Amino acid sequence: MQYKANQNNAVFRPHFKTHQSKDIAQWFKNEQIGYCTVSNLEMAEYFAEHNWNDITIAFPFIPSYLSKTESLATKITLNIVVSNYESAQYLATYLSVPLKVWMEIDVGYHRTGFDYRNRKSITKSVKSLNGNTFIHFEGFLSHFGNTYNAGSKDEILRLGKESVAKLLSLREDISPDAKVSIGDTPYLSIETEPIKVDEIRPGNFVFYDLMQLHAGCCKEEEIAAWMTCKVAATYPERHEIVIHGGAVHFSKEYLVKDGMKIYGQVARLQHGKIQIIEGAYLTSLSQEHGIISNDKVLDFNPEIGDELMVIPVHSCLTADLQNFYIQFPESNMLETKRSYTIQKNLKSYNER
Amino acid sequence: MQYKANQNNAVFRPHFKTHQSKDIAQWFKNEQIGYCTVSNLEMAEYFAEHNWNDITIAFPFIPSYLSKTESLATKITLNIVVSNYESAQYLATYLSVPLKVWMEIDVGYHRTGFDYRNRKSITKSVKSLNGNTFIHFEGFLSHFGNTYNAGSKDEILRLGKESVAKLLSLREDISPDAKVSIGDTPYLSIETEPIKVDEIRPGNFVFYDLMQLHAGCCKEEEIAAWMTCKVAATYPERHEIVIHGGAVHFSKEYLVKDGMKIYGQVARLQHGKIQIIEGAYLTSLSQEHGIISNDKVLDFNPEIGDELMVIPVHSCLTADLQNFYIQFPESNMLETKRSYTIQKNLKSYNER
Repeated sequence: MQYKANQNNAVFRPHFKTHQSKDIAQWFKNEQIGYCTVSNLEMAEYFAEHNWNDITIAFPFIPSYLSKTESLATKITLNIVVSNYESAQYLATYLSVPLKVWMEIDVGYHRTGFDYRNRKSITKSVKSLNGNTFIHFEGFLSHFGNTYNAGSKDEILRLGKESVAKLLSLREDISPDAKVSIGDTPYLSIETEPIKVDEIRPGNFVFYDLMQLHAGCCKEEEIAAWMTCKVAATYPERHEIVIHGGAVHFSKEYLVKDGMKIYGQVARLQHGKIQIIEGAYLTSLSQEHGIISNDKVLDFNPEIGDELMVIPVHSCLTADLQNFYIQFPESNMLETKRSYTIQKNLKSYNER
Repeated sequence: MQYKANQNNAVFRPHFKTHQSKDIAQWFKNEQIGYCTVSNLEMAEYFAEHNWNDITIAFPFIPSYLSKTESLATKITLNIVVSNYESAQYLATYLSVPLKVWMEIDVGYHRTGFDYRNRKSITKSVKSLNGNTFIHFEGFLSHFGNTYNAGSKDEILRLGKESVAKLLSLREDISPDAKVSIGDTPYLSIETEPIKVDEIRPGNFVFYDLMQLHAGCCKEEEIAAWMTCKVAATYPERHEIVIHGGAVHFSKEYLVKDGMKIYGQVARLQHGKIQIIEGAYLTSLSQEHGIISNDKVLDFNPEIGDELMVIPVHSCLTADLQNFYIQFPESNMLETKRSYTIQKNLKSYNER
């Protein structure tokens, strides 16, 4: 991804919501990457406390967070995102410390942001932001999102190119000096032609997962996160293996394959590389139990207590559920924001 | 539930996997309830450290957990569950401290346990368990589970009664002195006729949720857990409100209503009681964002920054994601096992 950013003369600002770990963030820093993206204010505070000095919070700014936002903006270079005229106006009226501000543009995902066709509201908001000298208006930011539901690589590429074109045309019309920043692991993973944007913010690529594999956006051996689960019971007559690994470990994100819901898939290491085991799907999850169904005779025959390597469908959600990671093969424990935040909350709770 | 247990002369052993909180557990203790159920060994250790002295781990015993299991069994009265002959035999061979053992019976859910029709394997396992004098064979335990997918109250009652009958007949055939223990909030919530079992282990009833409401197993005002989420953006033209509340807050459990996936529903307090707002559904979740869709004109018109009360679909999974609860209206912070465990893990990690 860094190479792709360099090729396109774009800033590389990886989204850290996928791993949420200061220790994994350090691997980026070791590669001289100094910018990052997060999905909430608390996550920004976490990475700021771990020496990240230029952070974008890619979630709509909510006026009631103004004082916390200002407080963080006095410590680091903070970039925030406004997603509607009301918030832009509020910020323009009340902000009293230097802050970089992006406008979120909806180019078809229909989650948050200004509808890219609504030039009037966008122009009005840019004007409003420019009226406050503390605000440095950065440009237009978008996360495509709908690429996650695209059926094929061609469709992802089509959606990605179309979305970029919409953003570039918007800039042309409204603010030629503005920057353009895009997220989106699927599109950025497979685009080989030039991408004419100023910044890329992919997140999921750090781990990838089954969803990205099925979409054709990564290879098996590029998947970098899995759960190790003990076999709790085997039912050869049902062609099922029950593991200690449920919704509280994987999340209930699924993908549909051959009409079947899949929550994960068994894999193994072959010569140090991950290899998916065809036919061994995690097909059912309750709170603590997971059921692996074999659609054919497998060439492995796990026993109770054996540990299986299970690839999650959506690594962001599975990672969020963890209190720690174990680095393979070093066995180092890597911190997650969850454990850090809990420690901190408990401290302030105990000090009440 | 306690009343229902008393009516049926059954032991009340609530399942604490729903709340996973020593503070909420204390409310049970205040009602003179001294038994509980948990879903893993670590959760048993947590409640044991908080003065629960008689605990059942309702998850299949895995042989490699023997030493931890024995260690806990020397501190409290521990009940474990064996779900297959291999584990029963292992336990009978190696266990060297007193332990109460239940056999898990599958009466139709097809997750874990001995198939109730497999009298041969069950008899063999009972015999094996009775061969070790440290083992006190308690009886037959089952979680119906399939009641969660029943389409109606009648179907839940039919499944529940049928399942109980299967267990009673099994006992009659194999071990007349054995006890029978059942879980299952849906069935236990609505059964009004006598239930001839020795123990009940419902869990979800402590909070209930949308799933139980839709199944007819609770009333609106019996729902006792919700998420408070800030409005991040409003899109009147799309009939949508975007909240700061996503898959990492709610989990991706859903139910289907009128062909639409629902991840939660907006509610409000009326005279101190929860009232669901019809037509205000949480219909889409990404990592941090949730989209509330209104299928009709609502009688409330939230603004950016307003806080909405959102009822989860499955309170067990939503609660598991939390680091704390805030008690309403007292504003007390209630501990969850997650925060406790993380503190402990961090301590041992830092002391390495």
